[in-house]
Amino acid sequence: MIVVMEKGATGEQVEHMVQRVAGLGLKPHVIYGTERTVIAAIGEKREQMKESLESGPGVSAVMPILAPYKIASREVKPEPSMVAARDLQIGAGRLGVIAGPCSVESEEQIISSARAVKAAGGAGLRGGAFKPRTSPYSFQGMKEEGLKLLAAAREETGLAVVTEVMACEDVDLVAGYADVLQVGARNMQNYRLLEAVGNVDRPVLLKRGPSATMDELLLAAEYILNEGNPNVMLCERGIRTFESHTRFTLPLATIAYLHRKTHLPVVIDPSHGTGHAYLVPDMAAAAVAAKADGLIIEIHPDPESALSDGYQSLNFDQFAETMTTIRRIADAVGLAM
Amino acid sequence: MIVVMEKGATGEQVEHMVQRVAGLGLKPHVIYGTERTVIAAIGEKREQMKESLESGPGVSAVMPILAPYKIASREVKPEPSMVAARDLQIGAGRLGVIAGPCSVESEEQIISSARAVKAAGGAGLRGGAFKPRTSPYSFQGMKEEGLKLLAAAREETGLAVVTEVMACEDVDLVAGYADVLQVGARNMQNYRLLEAVGNVDRPVLLKRGPSATMDELLLAAEYILNEGNPNVMLCERGIRTFESHTRFTLPLATIAYLHRKTHLPVVIDPSHGTGHAYLVPDMAAAAVAAKADGLIIEIHPDPESALSDGYQSLNFDQFAETMTTIRRIADAVGLAM
Amino acid sequence: MIVVMEKGATGEQVEHMVQRVAGLGLKPHVIYGTERTVIAAIGEKREQMKESLESGPGVSAVMPILAPYKIASREVKPEPSMVAARDLQIGAGRLGVIAGPCSVESEEQIISSARAVKAAGGAGLRGGAFKPRTSPYSFQGMKEEGLKLLAAAREETGLAVVTEVMACEDVDLVAGYADVLQVGARNMQNYRLLEAVGNVDRPVLLKRGPSATMDELLLAAEYILNEGNPNVMLCERGIRTFESHTRFTLPLATIAYLHRKTHLPVVIDPSHGTGHAYLVPDMAAAAVAAKADGLIIEIHPDPESALSDGYQSLNFDQFAETMTTIRRIADAVGLAM
Amino acid sequence: MIVVMEKGATGEQVEHMVQRVAGLGLKPHVIYGTERTVIAAIGEKREQMKESLESGPGVSAVMPILAPYKIASREVKPEPSMVAARDLQIGAGRLGVIAGPCSVESEEQIISSARAVKAAGGAGLRGGAFKPRTSPYSFQGMKEEGLKLLAAAREETGLAVVTEVMACEDVDLVAGYADVLQVGARNMQNYRLLEAVGNVDRPVLLKRGPSATMDELLLAAEYILNEGNPNVMLCERGIRTFESHTRFTLPLATIAYLHRKTHLPVVIDPSHGTGHAYLVPDMAAAAVAAKADGLIIEIHPDPESALSDGYQSLNFDQFAETMTTIRRIADAVGLAM
Repeated sequence: MIVVMEKGATGEQVEHMVQRVAGLGLKPHVIYGTERTVIAAIGEKREQMKESLESGPGVSAVMPILAPYKIASREVKPEPSMVAARDLQIGAGRLGVIAGPCSVESEEQIISSARAVKAAGGAGLRGGAFKPRTSPYSFQGMKEEGLKLLAAAREETGLAVVTEVMACEDVDLVAGYADVLQVGARNMQNYRLLEAVGNVDRPVLLKRGPSATMDELLLAAEYILNEGNPNVMLCERGIRTFESHTRFTLPLATIAYLHRKTHLPVVIDPSHGTGHAYLVPDMAAAAVAAKADGLIIEIHPDPESALSDGYQSLNFDQFAETMTTIRRIADAVGLAM
Repeated sequence: MIVVMEKGATGEQVEHMVQRVAGLGLKPHVIYGTERTVIAAIGEKREQMKESLESGPGVSAVMPILAPYKIASREVKPEPSMVAARDLQIGAGRLGVIAGPCSVESEEQIISSARAVKAAGGAGLRGGAFKPRTSPYSFQGMKEEGLKLLAAAREETGLAVVTEVMACEDVDLVAGYADVLQVGARNMQNYRLLEAVGNVDRPVLLKRGPSATMDELLLAAEYILNEGNPNVMLCERGIRTFESHTRFTLPLATIAYLHRKTHLPVVIDPSHGTGHAYLVPDMAAAAVAAKADGLIIEIHPDPESALSDGYQSLNFDQFAETMTTIRRIADAVGLAM
Repeated sequence: MIVVMEKGATGEQVEHMVQRVAGLGLKPHVIYGTERTVIAAIGEKREQMKESLESGPGVSAVMPILAPYKIASREVKPEPSMVAARDLQIGAGRLGVIAGPCSVESEEQIISSARAVKAAGGAGLRGGAFKPRTSPYSFQGMKEEGLKLLAAAREETGLAVVTEVMACEDVDLVAGYADVLQVGARNMQNYRLLEAVGNVDRPVLLKRGPSATMDELLLAAEYILNEGNPNVMLCERGIRTFESHTRFTLPLATIAYLHRKTHLPVVIDPSHGTGHAYLVPDMAAAAVAAKADGLIIEIHPDPESALSDGYQSLNFDQFAETMTTIRRIADAVGLAM
Repeated sequence: MIVVMEKGATGEQVEHMVQRVAGLGLKPHVIYGTERTVIAAIGEKREQMKESLESGPGVSAVMPILAPYKIASREVKPEPSMVAARDLQIGAGRLGVIAGPCSVESEEQIISSARAVKAAGGAGLRGGAFKPRTSPYSFQGMKEEGLKLLAAAREETGLAVVTEVMACEDVDLVAGYADVLQVGARNMQNYRLLEAVGNVDRPVLLKRGPSATMDELLLAAEYILNEGNPNVMLCERGIRTFESHTRFTLPLATIAYLHRKTHLPVVIDPSHGTGHAYLVPDMAAAAVAAKADGLIIEIHPDPESALSDGYQSLNFDQFAETMTTIRRIADAVGLAM
């Protein structure tokens, strides 16, 4: 950590901060510059030190040198991780595609969707049974009934089931049916839930909150990893910006950035990331060109009649066509599907 | 709702959408413009209709006319609501001030803080016992022990205790000690938690998520109201923007906007809203000038040694001085304290 | 346009607005809904009407139906436009690559860069002679001397020269040397400059301002088109968001959105769009997968010693490698290079 | 400056960077931490060094210690500056209010507005003669005719005239009529224009661009100051964020932040900062409570018929009432009017 003193900081203030740094178990090293004095605080400790030093007298700023996360860090585990569930393989050079409807609505809908995913070359089936909805008046999902239908669709196709868990008290129930537990963007910092999925023997797909920084996302993953579950996939699903022609802004530079900082695989969600079906195929293609490890795409047999997210769902033909393009691009950039 | 057709939309597509609107129980009314056809969909239904219509063939956009929330709406209840707990009164012309440390750390710390709040004219005591922390390695709060200390501080001073509840399973426990339940920004869309606090006989302070829109905030409140708890306060604590000289950007126009749209009172948090103690007094004053119904401010007997949020906490003298200014401004704009 | 009245709007207020709409030369059409009255204003006029109606008594909101731009609109010219300068062809299915240093620094630097661009298959040479710099103390460009070196590099390689013009008074000078005039992001709403380049016989590369909406970008293009210059290319170079791990956030959904709204070609700048050289190759690849019509990439013989933007410049080998990948992806998505 | 090396940086890379730092005329000082090596670069130089070092081999990040601006800095001139023009005094404890229409539309309109400003206690008259408009089809201002009307209004009332200059070639013309030159938000980084107004003997009101950082704003001011014009006022007029219920988000913490970093006075524009007339009075009050040095407010004799910005303009009565409140708040916080 680097503690930058204000221009007029007194010798006494500098000395005070030197003592504070030492008191935190770090080794202080003072550098007298032409205009400012800075104190380097040397040692392994990371989190919380910054906060403690920032309100010291005469302190202008505190700049951390080390990343605040550990287990997720590429410095700790240099080789990329691969997360697998049935035939779905995501990471370390393998591109896995998860697709399916926003919500499970009926047996026919989910079974036909699963067949379409399988036929087009996907390996994971998404489908919400517990749905976090912005409005209390919206469809809230089929709950356990939906989970059963997902399991039936897996039975039929062999696809790995990926579905959201919204609350600690549902973790065991959902884990009883699902192959991969999804933690939604709204719950990215629901720490109890993160701890709960960290204690279950299921891979976790952790979605980035729409205003979460990279450090916040990686610290949320750290909550899960820290409980002992190593199988975490990070999912970029778009951030909130001033743009209004898309529902969210989908920043694909996330992929290369995360690949540099963490060994965890990165999945892109072009459906939520754009909010409009017509933008999904190109952004799915772009994500693969940028070396995403996985994609999660919303499809529906009849988007117009979907109970949720119809406006951003592809129909089966559009999805099949998208998969054809994706395969060509994966080839071009050396990803195996 | 207004369904705007694309320029080249066919008569068949328009007819299809007219049928869809009718099928949703709304009355369609077609207007043929010079360049576009639009269909007005008349009726009381709100949510979900938009989504259903947006993916129709030839549809360019769907524009809602009605707000998606109801119980929170000023159209439903025109007069402003006041929320009270002990001597704390917030709303309908009364300004209530809540202050206290970020986290409860010790008996001495919380009791001395409570006395400082009381002495300066505050009516509510904040203090976290269950702390949602970005990093799993940060101090996570004293839990029930902290709640007991808060209750002791109330015993001593008569202040209303305001404290965060992080998970459904803690609601009863926290409600056993607290006068007001706080739902934190990270949990604004934790719908299970919203439902849980909607079923408890305690006022709720609902913090805006850092990227939540006004509609999303009001719909989160609607989850609570819809369960039967009418005592909801909305709290603006800053939004995430590109600015980096403050931790969040605190948009005070929120106050007048919400006063126009909802009867629920609006509390401002200048501590999280700026992230720097030196900015807190002026932003607290500004909030009152903009007719906030309440303030929630972080204070600490010794900010430099705080276990959390020291950099944005006022010491007792700074807080007392801030209260003096606030009182003058409340007078100037006609708010009672 | 749709004028939405407030819930309690009186008949008199509605009548007043009906008269206002008629007074603006539009045909009013009143729809009485269950809860609200709305007035459809039918006619061809676009801009300014919204502003005029928005402050009317009892008006809740005014929603435009038509886009505010015309000449740039795909409704006016459905087929995509191609902009060409020497061998550089951008748009209508052809992908053109422009590359070169941020600033022209010396003859050797620009000539060697031009050769590297040519060798790798680029058709345009970028290089700043007039540099808009955030700080008055930074290198401000070689000015006319730089233009001469660009012309020499063109002589040598046949590449089309793309360079920025910062002020009206320089337009003729720059147009005397350049094949394409670039209007920088900071000048996107410098309307005098837009008019000036609209009156010159040179294609224009118009960069999106970092907080410009799509409508603002297209209206800026409209200023140029409206003066009679039809050869405008739109350039996405990243927007300002809360993200700090990249200098800007590069939203590739811009491409498909603009392709739907306008016939003008879309060029992506992955160098400014990310601000870090290591992110450029993947984002360039992603842009092509998303069907960009062009790329503009910063390269430098020795990025570490560049006078500007070294941190986001590729060296020649990295650029050549990037071009190899790009060519494969262009193939995969059907773009001709 | 602090150069942070990557974890695995070699001794050779460290040595290379040490040489680079020395080559830039700074004194290198190496600190070997537990996990990372950092190099402190000691010396007075500011700008450009960062860029130069950032692309070095093995470099993880470069963190500047010194602010990039100098003349604007409070470190250089500790006491606050006051900018005056006729009776308008802004800064150093004096609050000055500028008001008037968005655009000059007619003699009657501007004269009556000036009288209303004067009567309510304002000291500056705003009014656009050259109007930068998003659309080429919008009203572009009365140009010199408008300047003449502003001068006539000054003749009548004694108010200081504040008006925008859009282009270098207009600077002399506008300075011939105006008391204060305004540089608009769209031109904040039009460096030629900044230099031009830096060479004129008129105070400058420099508006923050909607996505400009504080450093960018202060560096834009530095361009003006560096040419020799010391009379610069900074104007916060709102930033672009995801919020859509206001046109821009008005961050009042800007005031206290700038007061800490610069001696230049800070003016708030609650009209553009909110974009809705009903929000202006409260935000004007809030700005004064946060110790703004000045306000600039749009008013119009009949907002509904304004040729521009009617939706955010107060009528004369609303303005007079706002001034009454402002005066009470200025009293409460110790500002002289």
